[in-house]
Amino acid sequence: MRILVSNDDGIHAPGIRSLAAAMEGLGEVVVVAPDSERSAVGHAITLTDPIKTRTVCEPGGFTGHAVGGTPADSVKLAVCALLPEPPDLVVSGINLGPNAGIAVIYSGTVSAATEGTILGIPSMAVSLNTFRDPRWDTAARVARELAGRLVRDPLPKGVLLNVNVPNLPYGDLRGFAATRMAPSRFIETFDKRADPRGNIYYWMDGYLEPEGDPAGTDLRAVAEGWVSMTPIHFDLTHAGSLGHLAGWAAAPGA
Amino acid sequence: MRILVSNDDGIHAPGIRSLAAAMEGLGEVVVVAPDSERSAVGHAITLTDPIKTRTVCEPGGFTGHAVGGTPADSVKLAVCALLPEPPDLVVSGINLGPNAGIAVIYSGTVSAATEGTILGIPSMAVSLNTFRDPRWDTAARVARELAGRLVRDPLPKGVLLNVNVPNLPYGDLRGFAATRMAPSRFIETFDKRADPRGNIYYWMDGYLEPEGDPAGTDLRAVAEGWVSMTPIHFDLTHAGSLGHLAGWAAAPGA
Repeated sequence: MRILVSNDDGIHAPGIRSLAAAMEGLGEVVVVAPDSERSAVGHAITLTDPIKTRTVCEPGGFTGHAVGGTPADSVKLAVCALLPEPPDLVVSGINLGPNAGIAVIYSGTVSAATEGTILGIPSMAVSLNTFRDPRWDTAARVARELAGRLVRDPLPKGVLLNVNVPNLPYGDLRGFAATRMAPSRFIETFDKRADPRGNIYYWMDGYLEPEGDPAGTDLRAVAEGWVSMTPIHFDLTHAGSLGHLAGWAAAPGA
Repeated sequence: MRILVSNDDGIHAPGIRSLAAAMEGLGEVVVVAPDSERSAVGHAITLTDPIKTRTVCEPGGFTGHAVGGTPADSVKLAVCALLPEPPDLVVSGINLGPNAGIAVIYSGTVSAATEGTILGIPSMAVSLNTFRDPRWDTAARVARELAGRLVRDPLPKGVLLNVNVPNLPYGDLRGFAATRMAPSRFIETFDKRADPRGNIYYWMDGYLEPEGDPAGTDLRAVAEGWVSMTPIHFDLTHAGSLGHLAGWAAAPGA
């Protein structure tokens, strides 16, 4: 089995090294990832610029391909150009910080797995619910277990697995939970400043705020010590509104 | 009524000028858009760099804010920092080229409308189904009609309207159709080259290929001369797979 490992924190991030090491027991690992941090890039791809690549040898770790592009670029390039044949599994992460609730749509980590799924390959994104003192060993063990399960018991075509892991010792995890993406939004703040020449610029900051019923959501599960497993797809049609719009079709300006 | 106009082709693109002019009959128009083309950026946001802004006066057109960031940045910044109060409507476009099928998830045009929707504002993305000889007048008229309708007869919270317009004279349009996002994928090619110093780089190219049943899809409708109206949401949970994953929760490594 051939496993493609990618991320959005960049090929030199500690999380991808843990993930690559964890996958080595399952098959042949190939690492193709952005050459630097590309967090919050969503499903961006690079069409207007060339995409540079170079070989990276991580001391004591893997040899891989660093890509001058986004996570989605990395997976596309790996599958369509760099690898002799498509991988059997795409695993993205381990992200430093959660990708749950509405954060999923901004997440480069998830977008690498989305791209794998679009290309027809079972795919999984793994994120660790902390920004400090990460327990990579816990997330790596979870990733290895779920990767094995995903290969033996695949999700339907077009569905990827988005995993968030509590930052706890493995033995303290409460278990695994099937979850839904939490209704939520970012509450943004923009810090307005002037540069030395008087030009205005802003720093974006913000925090995620849950909305509505938290029962069964990824945010709730991971906060309470469960590994959240959310099935994600990318048919964005809101089927419940098709009837509403059918009413417009007859008289759109009415 | 206050209308926020954005896009991903950049504030100097002809499509946004047509759109801003079309919206002027409906209310007060404010244009906040990327300072240069940001196509295919998906739902990227800018967290690791400052976001610069400057005022732009388009000769014979609008005065607006050019943002050194993505479409999603532009809408967030407009709503949270630049405007004295939130707009009543966000309209994104007019994009040169369609945003239908799987292209929706890569689209910066759609992401501006997605961001408006996340912020609780009725939102619409408008794209023209051509890359040459664009009939901006047709798309602008469609945009004005549907914007008015959207304000009078809003979609549910969390749902945006994604519109694709055939590149035809208005009188030749066959009508308006409620559609779903077409199952489809990009077939990528990577053109491998070496720079003068021997470093490898790639150009990504590709085309969209429909998959499965085309009935009722945006791709089919717009190809056949209909204005496609697709309701889009961003709860990416694949509810049909929750039972599958619940079976894993008991024994994840089994």
